[in-house]
Amino acid sequence: MDLRSDTVTRPTAAMRAAMADAEVGDDVFGEDPTVAALEAEVAALFGHEAALFAPTGSMANQIALQLVVPRGEELLCDADAHVVTYELGAAAAYGGISARTWPALGAELDPDVVARMVRPDGYFAVPTRAIAVEQTHNRGGGGVIPLATLRELRRIADEHDLAVHCDGARIWHAHVADGVPLAEYGALFDTLSVCLSKGLGAPVGSLVVGSAEKIARARLVRKRLGGGMRQVGILAAAGRYALAHHVDRLGTDHARAARLAEAVAPYGVLATPVRTNLVPLDLTKHPLDAPALAAAARAEGVLISVLGPRTARLVTHLDLDDAGVDRAIEVLTTVLRG
Amino acid sequence: MDLRSDTVTRPTAAMRAAMADAEVGDDVFGEDPTVAALEAEVAALFGHEAALFAPTGSMANQIALQLVVPRGEELLCDADAHVVTYELGAAAAYGGISARTWPALGAELDPDVVARMVRPDGYFAVPTRAIAVEQTHNRGGGGVIPLATLRELRRIADEHDLAVHCDGARIWHAHVADGVPLAEYGALFDTLSVCLSKGLGAPVGSLVVGSAEKIARARLVRKRLGGGMRQVGILAAAGRYALAHHVDRLGTDHARAARLAEAVAPYGVLATPVRTNLVPLDLTKHPLDAPALAAAARAEGVLISVLGPRTARLVTHLDLDDAGVDRAIEVLTTVLRG
Amino acid sequence: MDLRSDTVTRPTAAMRAAMADAEVGDDVFGEDPTVAALEAEVAALFGHEAALFAPTGSMANQIALQLVVPRGEELLCDADAHVVTYELGAAAAYGGISARTWPALGAELDPDVVARMVRPDGYFAVPTRAIAVEQTHNRGGGGVIPLATLRELRRIADEHDLAVHCDGARIWHAHVADGVPLAEYGALFDTLSVCLSKGLGAPVGSLVVGSAEKIARARLVRKRLGGGMRQVGILAAAGRYALAHHVDRLGTDHARAARLAEAVAPYGVLATPVRTNLVPLDLTKHPLDAPALAAAARAEGVLISVLGPRTARLVTHLDLDDAGVDRAIEVLTTVLRG
Amino acid sequence: MDLRSDTVTRPTAAMRAAMADAEVGDDVFGEDPTVAALEAEVAALFGHEAALFAPTGSMANQIALQLVVPRGEELLCDADAHVVTYELGAAAAYGGISARTWPALGAELDPDVVARMVRPDGYFAVPTRAIAVEQTHNRGGGGVIPLATLRELRRIADEHDLAVHCDGARIWHAHVADGVPLAEYGALFDTLSVCLSKGLGAPVGSLVVGSAEKIARARLVRKRLGGGMRQVGILAAAGRYALAHHVDRLGTDHARAARLAEAVAPYGVLATPVRTNLVPLDLTKHPLDAPALAAAARAEGVLISVLGPRTARLVTHLDLDDAGVDRAIEVLTTVLRG
Repeated sequence: MDLRSDTVTRPTAAMRAAMADAEVGDDVFGEDPTVAALEAEVAALFGHEAALFAPTGSMANQIALQLVVPRGEELLCDADAHVVTYELGAAAAYGGISARTWPALGAELDPDVVARMVRPDGYFAVPTRAIAVEQTHNRGGGGVIPLATLRELRRIADEHDLAVHCDGARIWHAHVADGVPLAEYGALFDTLSVCLSKGLGAPVGSLVVGSAEKIARARLVRKRLGGGMRQVGILAAAGRYALAHHVDRLGTDHARAARLAEAVAPYGVLATPVRTNLVPLDLTKHPLDAPALAAAARAEGVLISVLGPRTARLVTHLDLDDAGVDRAIEVLTTVLRG
Repeated sequence: MDLRSDTVTRPTAAMRAAMADAEVGDDVFGEDPTVAALEAEVAALFGHEAALFAPTGSMANQIALQLVVPRGEELLCDADAHVVTYELGAAAAYGGISARTWPALGAELDPDVVARMVRPDGYFAVPTRAIAVEQTHNRGGGGVIPLATLRELRRIADEHDLAVHCDGARIWHAHVADGVPLAEYGALFDTLSVCLSKGLGAPVGSLVVGSAEKIARARLVRKRLGGGMRQVGILAAAGRYALAHHVDRLGTDHARAARLAEAVAPYGVLATPVRTNLVPLDLTKHPLDAPALAAAARAEGVLISVLGPRTARLVTHLDLDDAGVDRAIEVLTTVLRG
Repeated sequence: MDLRSDTVTRPTAAMRAAMADAEVGDDVFGEDPTVAALEAEVAALFGHEAALFAPTGSMANQIALQLVVPRGEELLCDADAHVVTYELGAAAAYGGISARTWPALGAELDPDVVARMVRPDGYFAVPTRAIAVEQTHNRGGGGVIPLATLRELRRIADEHDLAVHCDGARIWHAHVADGVPLAEYGALFDTLSVCLSKGLGAPVGSLVVGSAEKIARARLVRKRLGGGMRQVGILAAAGRYALAHHVDRLGTDHARAARLAEAVAPYGVLATPVRTNLVPLDLTKHPLDAPALAAAARAEGVLISVLGPRTARLVTHLDLDDAGVDRAIEVLTTVLRG
Repeated sequence: MDLRSDTVTRPTAAMRAAMADAEVGDDVFGEDPTVAALEAEVAALFGHEAALFAPTGSMANQIALQLVVPRGEELLCDADAHVVTYELGAAAAYGGISARTWPALGAELDPDVVARMVRPDGYFAVPTRAIAVEQTHNRGGGGVIPLATLRELRRIADEHDLAVHCDGARIWHAHVADGVPLAEYGALFDTLSVCLSKGLGAPVGSLVVGSAEKIARARLVRKRLGGGMRQVGILAAAGRYALAHHVDRLGTDHARAARLAEAVAPYGVLATPVRTNLVPLDLTKHPLDAPALAAAARAEGVLISVLGPRTARLVTHLDLDDAGVDRAIEVLTTVLRG
């Protein structure tokens, strides 16, 4: 029972068959039909002109940020955003992008807080060029930013002539949880990154989504970052399969996460209400700390993620079924009961 | 009457004489006796081993940050810190330094807020390497961070093995306002930048202060940034003169700023209590916005800084005497009265 | 008949089967057994401690360069080296690596020319830290640098305490052409990049090879560049298959390239003698320029690469058989005959 | 007798007086009349629209390079160019500029060699954007690139739509040696850097010269690099004095260098004919190596520069008179005689 992350899923037999049969070509020459089809499909889902396959969500995010923020200029984002937390400082190190962060708010994003941070163009202050949001919010416990909040943010961005990037690694979950069409999300952002290898269960791959002009530039940035692969159709075939078969089923993962949350809640360790497939635990008031809980669970065959001394995380995904959730509940409640 | 900034001061006749008589040499070869004397003097003031002259405060800050934060790793600072606001994104653009910011708190810095943001070393999250503070705090209205707060911050930094950099462009003002010896401040920081051309009235120059090992590396970074000047003794002589004659008199500037504050306070435009030589104005509740106030004052020969649509700033300095302050009060109160 | 590059090969049925059956895990967590096996295998082949899978040869090269040259310090390489020609300036843009180049010599590398370019450590000049060579040499017409030359270069590097990186995208071809064991090459270099998706016919993937300490750092750099993929075993399985089945057969590609060279030589267009699978054409003295030749060949179903106005290239590979070579010879000689 | 470099000159009494009397203002606010006058004067000398003061020649060069070469794109220059030799890799480290170098040719620059290195714009190769030349050429022994060569280079640059930057730290010497008007040089370059503190004897300062649009951007780059100083008029006054009084006299330095060259030539140590104020020594065939020669000369009060194990340099300048040259000749010939 691996509840550490939805990145651990293994491709299904049907997905493997799709990969084995994939028509491929040299994608650096723009000649891989399967990746071209995937890119067109994803662009269409979000109502954008174009999309580009990238080996990871981190690269997809970093490509997008380099498109919207020139070196030495400014990005605003949440202090817990993946783009400044889990991408090893690439935005600054390689993009030369200056960042200021609003206090970690997760899905409780407050557009007014963002608006007050915007700095104007000019000779003296570093000009703000873009805002990044994360949907769903990873360190925000898989929370879903309400559509109305995103619309208000878009309005603020337009007022100040800023781009908005959405780190949409798990935007599929938001779409399923809130019933917001992907294209409705797409309309609010200049660029998005979306991931095939987390909730959707493909082995590898993310996409950057945007205008044709941006994606043409994205292709150069991807090559500079070392992401211009060749017969990518093998991976894209898994992605196409995942889009066709693994989006709608996310509701099941959400229901399982809700069951997990309900089971652990009585022990006072649920950090926030659960909206999607992440169950964030806060052990501040519990006798066990996060490493101790993880070790005890591991001893019973249940793997969970330690995020900090007193924070941990459970994640539901394609490779975890009802029986697995039952067993995880049994193990975790036993351990938490002490 | 120029109240825009203390950067506008012109060297006095005595300072000009000191420059004209300065003994100089080629400082790239380490042969300028006046700059060597200044560097030793400033290092000693702060109880550090060494110091290095830099053409600007921005360069002094950026050199220091490059010393304490490797590319791709993390700096924590105030969302209004000079290092991420007024240095054109150099920390990210040239240092590759990733930053997260705590909410703009100015001198009301809360060490617990900082402590909660620290990320551990490791494979997944960007590791935090340093914290930057600003004493006095420029956008924080010239506020002085209390010594106790800085000590608590140092303790937190030690606990997490972090460096602390002090942007001490106006640390002289804090020293005079709070009576804290410079060496006591020096003991709390791994690196400091201090400025000769703001409150102290020299035409050009700042210094980076730190250990001998750090300053040896600083010399290389300075050269890479293009700051390795030749007969710097001309400028260092002004700095030495300023240190000898213009530190103790800062109390006068503070008193004048207090007079200005007292005069404008009745109009509801004083943003924060005044501690040093900066008088921050908040015009949110006043009929005039900041550009209008500045324009009206300018028409009467009084220059003030506009920092935002509804924020402005008055600054006292060496080139502004009591008569100038009187006249500024007369003009500003007339305008504010409407 | 696609003679543009050996990057265009499509995975064989057997290779696809190997991918479809691959055991996989989350490689970001270090849990993919197939990628671990491939990494161990490649490290062993070159007599190094460790290796790391990367999505492309460009990323493998850039990771290695970031390991051996600190930002602001110097790499020496050929003016036609892939690392400064076809990687979109990543060494400078992301690695901050300063480069000086010796005149394009391809495999005719002259160690004395390199030795004279080395700059010492010190305050004034940019210190040289590493030398990069390319085996076989892409723009050098697939030429093979003699082992004696590489040994002399290693001696020079040791004398000056420099690292040597080998861009070994096609080192398999050198190994087959000159009969030099891979481990004998490996012993001469601090780091190597080797490619699975060119001559060896895998769809995607390269590896960085080096010491355990370097590869541990490489893992971080790869993640920062966005190359930390998840169930990589799918791709690694293709690589393992390629190593087992597609190295020894490269002699066939070399023989086919020799046949092509022999066929076009009478038209005065062979740029250099052919040693491996690349046939470089120099059309300086031919009535047709490179685009015209390529267009005429394409009209007959034969694709070739245009490298410059008067330079072109033919490449043999896994997807080109004897019949294809016959047909390419027929078409090209007809066009060249005019 | 200091013959190490013309950077060692100390300001004359008249120059010091000019500095002491300089009218100044806050140049970050664009309010220093003396620096404005200097900038206008230098722009006019070279027939360009604008110029910008910078603290060093290195910064002036790096600003210019950042203006003409976007990050990740390419600069071509001599393998011994100051911009890739003595600026600590700043072009790559901070500008992200990829460089390829032609073999060290000094003033014997061959435009055809340059032309053959130019790479076209496009998806695959790093596009060449600019060429840098150095006039006079520092490591090229103070040689003067002939006007005809520069014109041919300009033609090539125009053909390929490239910018040409001139590192003109000692362009004054070329102007005096070849009698070419400064504006005639200026017309050939998109950007120039010129230095006040080498041959011209000012203590500090260089300028970037170019179009109004470029210099507006240069002002931002300078601030980002930490070069936006305040009451710069102090330094600019020295520069204005130097321009008025120290350009025409450079012929005297050249004559003195010629005398030195003539004196040492019989010992077989003159590296190249002397054209300006640099006398390059090559001790390859002499019993003494460079450190030994320098040490022996130093023991007699004559300082010279060691550039490599067997290379050294003598430099004439404002602070070295005929008697000094006589004494240097006496000491050096005695030592060389053995």
